[in-house]
Formats: sequence, C-alpha cells, structure tokens
Amino acid sequence: MGEFDLIARYFKRPTRQAALGIGDDCALLQPTPGCQLAVSCDMLVQGRHFFADVDPRTLGHKALAVNLSDLAACGAKPLAFTLALALPEVNEAWLEAFSQGLFALADRHGCELIGGDTTAGPLNICITVFGEVPVPGGRSQALLRSGAKAGDDLYVSGTVGDARLALDVRLGKLCLPAEAPAMMAASAPSNTAAATSAPISELSQVLDFAHARLETPTPRVALGLALRGVATSAIDVSDGLLGDLGHILERSRVGASVDADEAIKSIASYAYFKRSKGQYFINLSSEQWRTLALAGGDDYELLFTAPPAQRDAVQAAALTSQTPVRRIGQIDTEPGLRVVDAQGHLLPNRYKSFDHFA
Amino acid sequence: MGEFDLIARYFKRPTRQAALGIGDDCALLQPTPGCQLAVSCDMLVQGRHFFADVDPRTLGHKALAVNLSDLAACGAKPLAFTLALALPEVNEAWLEAFSQGLFALADRHGCELIGGDTTAGPLNICITVFGEVPVPGGRSQALLRSGAKAGDDLYVSGTVGDARLALDVRLGKLCLPAEAPAMMAASAPSNTAAATSAPISELSQVLDFAHARLETPTPRVALGLALRGVATSAIDVSDGLLGDLGHILERSRVGASVDADEAIKSIASYAYFKRSKGQYFINLSSEQWRTLALAGGDDYELLFTAPPAQRDAVQAAALTSQTPVRRIGQIDTEPGLRVVDAQGHLLPNRYKSFDHFA
Repeated sequence: MGEFDLIARYFKRPTRQAALGIGDDCALLQPTPGCQLAVSCDMLVQGRHFFADVDPRTLGHKALAVNLSDLAACGAKPLAFTLALALPEVNEAWLEAFSQGLFALADRHGCELIGGDTTAGPLNICITVFGEVPVPGGRSQALLRSGAKAGDDLYVSGTVGDARLALDVRLGKLCLPAEAPAMMAASAPSNTAAATSAPISELSQVLDFAHARLETPTPRVALGLALRGVATSAIDVSDGLLGDLGHILERSRVGASVDADEAIKSIASYAYFKRSKGQYFINLSSEQWRTLALAGGDDYELLFTAPPAQRDAVQAAALTSQTPVRRIGQIDTEPGLRVVDAQGHLLPNRYKSFDHFA
Repeated sequence: MGEFDLIARYFKRPTRQAALGIGDDCALLQPTPGCQLAVSCDMLVQGRHFFADVDPRTLGHKALAVNLSDLAACGAKPLAFTLALALPEVNEAWLEAFSQGLFALADRHGCELIGGDTTAGPLNICITVFGEVPVPGGRSQALLRSGAKAGDDLYVSGTVGDARLALDVRLGKLCLPAEAPAMMAASAPSNTAAATSAPISELSQVLDFAHARLETPTPRVALGLALRGVATSAIDVSDGLLGDLGHILERSRVGASVDADEAIKSIASYAYFKRSKGQYFINLSSEQWRTLALAGGDDYELLFTAPPAQRDAVQAAALTSQTPVRRIGQIDTEPGLRVVDAQGHLLPNRYKSFDHFA
C-alpha cells in the first residue's frame, strides 16, 4: 500500500467543520468570529512515551488525549487536529486499530482530523490540536498559567498517581505481593478462589483502572470549559503535579503550599490500599504514596487555582462536567513551594518531575 | 541542560503577532477578521529526509521551508508555526545552529514560533505551520488543487531537478567526470589550474547551486501570494513534478499534456551542461534529464495552472515576486497525463514519484 492509499484508507474522512480537510497542500479553518484559536502540539516517541507492544488502539487514544488535555487546561473547545506519523512499516492491522482509537476519542470531542503527514521512520506520532476560546469584549476567556493570585485555592481534578503506579508495576519497580493469588484466581480450585475472591477481584479492578489511567487518560475538556471565568490559572498535569505547579508559580510570580496527605487521597489505588489494609496490595510507605501523587506524571488532570469566593462555582463546574475535583493547597504571596503533611508540618520537597533531558 | 532550559535558550522569543506564544499549555492566535487559517504539517526524519551529517543550520532552514512551501501553494501569508523536536541528545552546538537556520528563514517570512514540544528520541522534526488567506465576500482566495480547467496553461516556478541531481551525486548514483580536475584546481600548479579554471569554477558553482537546492530550498511564498486570483490551481513540487501534477488532475478531474523538453530547461544544471557541451559535466542522456525534471522531487517549486487569458498576469506575478516561471504544458479535457517531447511526440511516462511506502 502506498502513502496516499494509506491516508485514504485509514485517515481521510469527510470534514464537517473545517472549510477544507485532508487532500490539499493546506487545510483551511474558518475561525468563529470573536474567538481566538488555541494551538498545542505533542510528540510521542516509542520507548519513551509508550512501550513497543502497546495496544495501537489505546495509543491512538492517548496520542490525541494528551493534546486535548492541553486544550482543556486552556479552557478551549476542541475543533480540529493534524497528525504526523512516522511508521517503520505499513502494518494494516496496527493502522486500523490506531485510527479507531484515535477517531473514537476525536468524535467524542467533535475534533476532526484536517491534515498531516506520513513518512517512513522510527515510530513517532506528532499531533497538533486546535481549539477555540471566546474573546468577549476583547478579553480572552483562555485559562493561563499566569493568573494565580495569593490567597487562591489550589485544586486538582480526578485521580493522580495511578498512571505512575501502573508504569512502575510494568517496569518491575513495584511488585505486587497479591500477584500470585491474583494469578491463581483464574485457574485455582473454586474453594481457594472463593476464600480470596472479593479482594482479588477488587485488586484486579484497581490495577486495571491504574493501567487505563496510563494508557487511556481522560482529557478534562468539559471541566476546562466549565472553569472559564471561575479559575484564575490552570495547567495540565503531565510531568508531575509539583513540577507542573512550578510553571504556574513561575508565570504567576507567586508561591504555594500543598497538602501532600490531601493530594494522595486523589490516588484511586490509595483508597483501595487503605480499605484492604495493605493485605491485598502493594505495601507502600506514606512517602511512596506522596511521590506517586506529587511526582507521578502522565496524569492529564487539571491543576488549577480559584479564589475562595468561587468555591461553590468550582463545585458547580465539577458537577456539570462530571469531574471530581479536590482542594489540595493554596497560593501564597511568599515565593517558593511548601509541601506539608496532614498536620501542617513542612515536608522536604523531594518530588522531582519528569524531564526528557535532565 | 533540562528540557525547559533548552526551550528557553534556543527557541523562546518574544511574540509579535500571536496573542500568546511559547510557555503555556496552548498558544493563542487571534485570526484576522475575514481570513481563513491555512494549516499544514510536515515531518522530517533522519536518514529519510536528510543525512545524519547534514549541517544543522541548513536543516533548520529546510524543516521550515518545506512547510512554508505548502502555504505558498495555497496562496497563504505565513503567520506562525509550532515545532516538535525529538532529539537523541542535547547537543548545544547543534541546537544553536539549527535554531539559527530556522529563525533566519522564519524572520524573512514574518512567521513566528508559537509553541511545540521537545522530547528525547531518534532525531525527528515536525513543524505545523499557519497562514492566512482572505475570504472577501465569503469567497476564499486560497489556491487549491481542485481548480484546474481544461485549456489552462501549466506552469512551474524556479528550477526543478537540481536537488535530485545533488542527491544522486551524494549517493554516488551519478559520478562527476569533472570531479578529478575540480579537485585538482585547488592544489594543482597554477599552469594546470589556468588551463581549466573557467569551466571548473563554473562547474563548482553549478554543483553548489544544486546542493543548495537540496539543502536550503526556497519556499515560493511571494509567488503564491501574487498568484491569488490568477492561478486556477496550485501544488508544491515535493515528490516529483508529474506525481504532484497527478494530484491536481485527480482533484480537478482533468487531464494534462507536459512538454518534457520544455520542463528540462527548468533544470539549472542542464543549462550549464548545454553550454559546456558535456565536457566538464555529467554526460546525461535526454531521458536522464527528463527524469530529473519530471520525477526529481525535493524541489519545493510551485506547479500551477492559469487560463491563457491570464498569461500577462502570470508574468506580472513572476516579476513582482522575482520568481521565474516557465510554461511547460496545458490542461486537457481528456483524462490522464501525456508526456511529449519538443516535437510533440508522445513519450512513455516512466516518471515515478517518490512514495515513502511504495
């Protein structure tokens, strides 16, 4: 199959919103009057952002999800995207699954593929995504990193740390003591299975959830839209919560205090760990749980700030977007980042974010 | 050096046109009222689009040039671009030179870098470029592949085939009989050098020119803008002239006749070959010259159509944009592509375009 057949078969679809889609030198977008165009770009490299044996369907999802997450953090409504793809070979089953995962998420957000490029090369997926933000009366409604004010509450959406837990299990950095019984559950005599079936099935669900957080993250687009006019600043958590918070602090020229023990309650696996009292799960220390929450990475949740006067509005945004949010700290006048425990004691900040070159 | 230092040092510059540039989750573009946004995306892979030992300055130029060429083919005015970069390592000298080559071309076209991504990985450069096209009275001035009409003249800009000649010399597919004397010229006794100095210095210039066509192509942005309202269709020649013409024919549902012997006059090296009577240059057959012109690739010239009534307007566009254009054929009602020689005799069409997966 040639390059143009490949595009026609797996990626070309009728455009509904764009003035012109795939098939010319350029795509053409007709911007909505009174809107700004929000643009973001993420490149995913095999062995760096995903394993070589990843399910191509989830890879198609994730490649777009991490880009939509940037639109969410900006409060932009998804519109369209371009896809550049370097492929080591033409594998039709791979392309079929990849494009299905990609378009399933794209359709859910009304975000259409308008152009791109395909080439031979080491597997590399580069998506550039476009969204719109209203600018009523010349004032952009875009959520920026630069708007946090001293006294603002600090929130994080959904769950953090679970993606990293799944990654560490996959890399063998964390071992599941319950893995043996979990394995047994499938093949064991029914009396053995019965003895442990409840916690094992729950463990399996928790691990599946963590794995799904790693492979098919949920871009918080609806929350981002609902936070327009409510949040003072926002960023998506991709490299680790505290590292990404650092970008807000730098751009807003403020400091922050983060309650690490409140943050770990956002780890879905942690709730299970507490319920199972460590019996059927990895027995992590508080410090390890804090590291997962504060420096996990690959979460694609929204970290945002809003004044205390907007607490009801934040809860309303969470409700209308059906996205849990948790208040985990506040913005301070004093520069720097302070991590405290549940008792308010200062903790050493050892939570380093991911850096491709550090 | 970490990821964010790298971006700050080599790629972050104040934005002049964009509402928001590098440093947030999204960049923000404020579209000019009454304009469409033209979007294109090209990915360059080491070993596929460029040699590992390429000068990073010319690579920076070329990565943007091939994208600007798509805007040119659309008649769009360059506005901004995003850059995603996978780097095997942080090499500061490489980054310095790459960014210099990139920004030198960007500045020449008033096209600013507004965002992107950096990651570790096999060297890969993905640029998405944005331009604007006026839509007066709801009619887009974009040049499309789909507008060619039977009876239209077919033109190509600048020079074609020279980039491929340089590539074939580099790959050892073509050998220079004059290479030995050219080498001698630098170190030979002055009497030997004097005997051959005139043609050798010209040969060297021609080869330098061909090499420059390969490594630092000129996007025909000014010509594209000047052809708005004049050309009925356009495409940029990247995979080979006839292959790219095929896209116009397919989208416009027309056929074409191309004068191969007129097309080879667009090869700059051919003019030198004719003057030197083959004595100081590669002695190629007519068929080889035709292949260079019609299936060379990597030319980034504009191939476009315009009605005969617009011949003066095409010449005026060529003059104002200071870009030579040559009429090399015409659009026919009869489907298919006919290649003819100077005498109008039909030639077999063996001119296959580049395809990454064919």
